[in-house]
Amino acid sequence: MIQHETRLRVRYAETDQMGYCYYGNYAQYFEVARAEMIRSLGFTYKDMEAKHDTLMPVMSLNIRYVRPALYDEELRLMTTLRKLPSKTVTFYTEVYNEKSELVCGGSVKLGFITSAKGEGIEAPEVLLEKLRPHFEDTES
Amino acid sequence: MIQHETRLRVRYAETDQMGYCYYGNYAQYFEVARAEMIRSLGFTYKDMEAKHDTLMPVMSLNIRYVRPALYDEELRLMTTLRKLPSKTVTFYTEVYNEKSELVCGGSVKLGFITSAKGEGIEAPEVLLEKLRPHFEDTES
Amino acid sequence: MIQHETRLRVRYAETDQMGYCYYGNYAQYFEVARAEMIRSLGFTYKDMEAKHDTLMPVMSLNIRYVRPALYDEELRLMTTLRKLPSKTVTFYTEVYNEKSELVCGGSVKLGFITSAKGEGIEAPEVLLEKLRPHFEDTES
Amino acid sequence: MIQHETRLRVRYAETDQMGYCYYGNYAQYFEVARAEMIRSLGFTYKDMEAKHDTLMPVMSLNIRYVRPALYDEELRLMTTLRKLPSKTVTFYTEVYNEKSELVCGGSVKLGFITSAKGEGIEAPEVLLEKLRPHFEDTES
Repeated sequence: MIQHETRLRVRYAETDQMGYCYYGNYAQYFEVARAEMIRSLGFTYKDMEAKHDTLMPVMSLNIRYVRPALYDEELRLMTTLRKLPSKTVTFYTEVYNEKSELVCGGSVKLGFITSAKGEGIEAPEVLLEKLRPHFEDTES
Repeated sequence: MIQHETRLRVRYAETDQMGYCYYGNYAQYFEVARAEMIRSLGFTYKDMEAKHDTLMPVMSLNIRYVRPALYDEELRLMTTLRKLPSKTVTFYTEVYNEKSELVCGGSVKLGFITSAKGEGIEAPEVLLEKLRPHFEDTES
Repeated sequence: MIQHETRLRVRYAETDQMGYCYYGNYAQYFEVARAEMIRSLGFTYKDMEAKHDTLMPVMSLNIRYVRPALYDEELRLMTTLRKLPSKTVTFYTEVYNEKSELVCGGSVKLGFITSAKGEGIEAPEVLLEKLRPHFEDTES
Repeated sequence: MIQHETRLRVRYAETDQMGYCYYGNYAQYFEVARAEMIRSLGFTYKDMEAKHDTLMPVMSLNIRYVRPALYDEELRLMTTLRKLPSKTVTFYTEVYNEKSELVCGGSVKLGFITSAKGEGIEAPEVLLEKLRPHFEDTES
């Protein structure tokens, strides 16, 4: 299992007239969270596309909203990878506000495709080798 | 049951470098679809907020992505309301491309709160009276 | 000169906690307006990219805001092309609300580059031939 | 004069199919930059709204784009306040990429209004007292 924390602040542009962070913005926040988790492993999603010809289209998104996030709040995003990727990978993210209250939680499932042909493939070895050390203990 | 169709075109701003409509934008598209369904009933979400002091915060969002939508495609959004709202309401939306292929499908569950106190309430009568005629047949 | 009108409705996602359409969204609205102008001429920006290997990166953006646009307002976007494109093209757009009051006005200047090499080029002939008939009277 | 630097990273959501950071996103980046400048002075825009009943609607936006910003680049935003605010305030922001090349530069002019009546007012004293120490030298 891998767990990673990242932080970001709600922009004015991201609020709506209800005074809440608009519900659709969390998809972006989750994207930031998983990109930062991958970076923390010494790899980047950018390189996966640019150097390894692998794209990761999203297959499903699920979010349960508990309370609103407000303008200028620094949110804490806790992202967990519970299983090694195979043909797909699922990231679970929980968002907490400055009082450590749960704002929302959700999951994003992504696939792997080649950028050339768009065919579904297994998770690339270059990613797996970064991830395996974190899963060895729990699998033994 | 109520079903409503609305159309919108993918903006350049909404594409990403994969050449797809970014996965987070569908939350906005679903918002447009449910607002247009309500308008088709002779009511508006705008008036619900402005005249009836009722806000509808989102409680959950689920989307399953089947194929990408591309820049400039005119998407057809098919939204269904299967049950009369009570404390919550769930809208189901399917998105089709110009070839009538399914792009994605999902649901959004919303609650009702008073704008003054933020307390959860039942769906306002002003909305229900617009909806009931569409559900009478299926309930008898 | 070419003038073209298009309409769009302010989405909830596009409002901010001030209750206004966020100032950054007009860049998207201007994009929709110029894409629709090009479509009205029997051409599409999509085809310029996909079939004619020409991209149009933005070189400058200027907007003067007069009054806010509000949620659910149907805005009228009036776009004008005052001169035939050469190495660049400038679109002027004025945005009006439902009371025909000016919301904002601005201009976007774009260049033309080849998608392969990213080199600056002249406006492609396929676009110019659609535009010329509209400029002949004013030039004679 | 006050100058302040802040950094942010281009999100995948913010790219477009040209592979660039979409031109409209810089309005959001400029917003982040000026909010962070105000925070660095020991004040927040959030408090200006919440505690001092003052909103700052945008009056004009001007951007000149020099080169594209790309996905995952960490951008450096250099924001300058050249004059003390009066009825309006203008922030100048330059955006640099990781190679310290200029991506774009622009300015945003904002007014001050009361949240209650929406009337134009002078910059609130609570903001001016934070700013004055930075302008005393240059004015003498």
